[in-house]
Amino acid sequence: MTPGPVPGSVHIVGTGLIGTSLGLALTQAGGVVTLEDISSTSAALARDLGAGSTTPEADPALVVVATPPDVTASCVLAALERWPDAVVTDVASVKGTIIERLRDEGADLERFCGSHPMAGRERTGAVAGRADLFHGRAWVVTPTAETSERARDLVSTVAHAVGAEVLTLEPAEHDAAVASVSHVPQLMASLVAARLEHLADASVALSGQGIRDVTRIAASDPNLWTQILSGNASAVREVLAPLAADLNAVIAALEALGSDGDAPGARGTLAQAIAAGNAGHARIPGKHGAAPTTYTTVRVLIPDEPGQLGRLFADVGEIGTNIEEFHLDHGLGQAFGLAEIDVVPGAATALSEGLEERGWRLHG
Amino acid sequence: MTPGPVPGSVHIVGTGLIGTSLGLALTQAGGVVTLEDISSTSAALARDLGAGSTTPEADPALVVVATPPDVTASCVLAALERWPDAVVTDVASVKGTIIERLRDEGADLERFCGSHPMAGRERTGAVAGRADLFHGRAWVVTPTAETSERARDLVSTVAHAVGAEVLTLEPAEHDAAVASVSHVPQLMASLVAARLEHLADASVALSGQGIRDVTRIAASDPNLWTQILSGNASAVREVLAPLAADLNAVIAALEALGSDGDAPGARGTLAQAIAAGNAGHARIPGKHGAAPTTYTTVRVLIPDEPGQLGRLFADVGEIGTNIEEFHLDHGLGQAFGLAEIDVVPGAATALSEGLEERGWRLHG
Repeated sequence: MTPGPVPGSVHIVGTGLIGTSLGLALTQAGGVVTLEDISSTSAALARDLGAGSTTPEADPALVVVATPPDVTASCVLAALERWPDAVVTDVASVKGTIIERLRDEGADLERFCGSHPMAGRERTGAVAGRADLFHGRAWVVTPTAETSERARDLVSTVAHAVGAEVLTLEPAEHDAAVASVSHVPQLMASLVAARLEHLADASVALSGQGIRDVTRIAASDPNLWTQILSGNASAVREVLAPLAADLNAVIAALEALGSDGDAPGARGTLAQAIAAGNAGHARIPGKHGAAPTTYTTVRVLIPDEPGQLGRLFADVGEIGTNIEEFHLDHGLGQAFGLAEIDVVPGAATALSEGLEERGWRLHG
Repeated sequence: MTPGPVPGSVHIVGTGLIGTSLGLALTQAGGVVTLEDISSTSAALARDLGAGSTTPEADPALVVVATPPDVTASCVLAALERWPDAVVTDVASVKGTIIERLRDEGADLERFCGSHPMAGRERTGAVAGRADLFHGRAWVVTPTAETSERARDLVSTVAHAVGAEVLTLEPAEHDAAVASVSHVPQLMASLVAARLEHLADASVALSGQGIRDVTRIAASDPNLWTQILSGNASAVREVLAPLAADLNAVIAALEALGSDGDAPGARGTLAQAIAAGNAGHARIPGKHGAAPTTYTTVRVLIPDEPGQLGRLFADVGEIGTNIEEFHLDHGLGQAFGLAEIDVVPGAATALSEGLEERGWRLHG
């Protein structure tokens, strides 16, 4: 992936994780970057890290608003007014409410093109900034009918310049999409995890890989997610409403089965819920946005002794198979782990034989 | 882990994945195993694979019923009648409904001790059987007040003999626990995945690691899960009812936010839902059933070229760090993957330095 050319001068408002990372990436790509933040300490820190200068340019080509989501619209309005020739974009994870506000205020929408780089980290702030944060990530660009070609092109060019892949969606399409693939999964992971809070230790002890995967993202920040969910309230509600209807149908079916073992139709409702999940799951694209690929999985038993996983890595490296995915599964209180190594079907035999020759026990 | 001694003679009813695997494991541990199945082909196949003999013993010490869940109770009843001295157990994933049925039929509950080995595979049938299927897995034993010590000990001994860890729970406790940590997560993963079925390609394309994890188990078998969920209908409903109430509160909060940007209390409801998920998630035990452990994560950027993951494995193996967890994350349409390597905090520096020396780009 070769980054595209960097446009002249970019002014970044907000030197948190995203703003600082963007400044670092554009500076490294040879661009002219200026920075500001409501906290002068944060702006100076981003500058010292190499994200750009804190001396304002009179006439930036592009202003990027990278503030927390609840002040994004106000900052975009201010930027459009302060720099009457500049293109302005933002990086918030919800787009519709911002456009609505700009329209209400009669902003110059021709120079605005919203966007959403789908990149993040567990850590926040300028100090967590990384020049490679956007490498290989999607950067959604959300022009409206009013957006000029110049505005759209400039935002896309910056996204390419920092190594991201540009996807174009309408603001409402974007918000509906992230409601389905990000906001609703987050909420449901949290609701499932919440059921564990008051469970007995002996019961939680039965947790296996399934619930670990389902609830992994339940460890997310309540404050940030409250901002995201309130910013996308309508779209999230539109996905949750049919989900709640499905859930109520399942509960009714379980109720019927609890009171009458026969319960005509109840098993059909349950089977339908699981089958619809099969169909939806099959829609998730594989690596690189390509159609889901079928790999062959080689399963290896790993004794839980120091260095065993490292030894496996060394052996797999020596065998030289190209590995597509790697997944490690620990059962409860076990002395063994199970490593799942996905490879293209033609490569599985060589890997299996190579591992068995080196003394590994394969597992199905 | 040293397997315990094997009791004399074990008769297995049902030579599917679990029955055949148990036969293989006990035979390899020196036990005398006999097999039967409603399909004589399946029983003969299990025999040919080395799981035991198909010539019945007159007087088995233990009978293990390993049939599909919807016929388990009937097969346990038949076994208690046919062998009036034998201890009988089963391996179904729901326990309460079986006990209820046995009690209704006036069965000899003193000789019965239900159990649930928490082991499975994607594949089914005798041919998928593995002697090591139970290694390091939990095997829950669910005696009732009527269960004799002899029955309980015999079932525990067999579980130990095949390398499992024995946990003892009351049948109702077991069913409530698996409802929370297995059945409800399965249902919610399916309901979230179902929302993707009719989504536009451009929207599904935004799927990241979060939804992949939340919906991984949504690819499960509708027929098997219908049997499991109907067998545990009441316990699952009891977990789903408060979850549905939480969901309705979230929907009401989103509705309020959609119609009134101020919406007093609505943000509190959302933050509370995410925070309760934090608290529940923190209850999930770490590796080996121990308290959750905090590891340090070393993140490594992986160019998506043939052999890069193998090269990483070789280098990590050479550095010799003991790895606790390994996770691979691919973004959308990206030329880079991100490998997350968890190690104990004290080992992170050596690993990071070793990788950087070998030319790897670390990420945070």
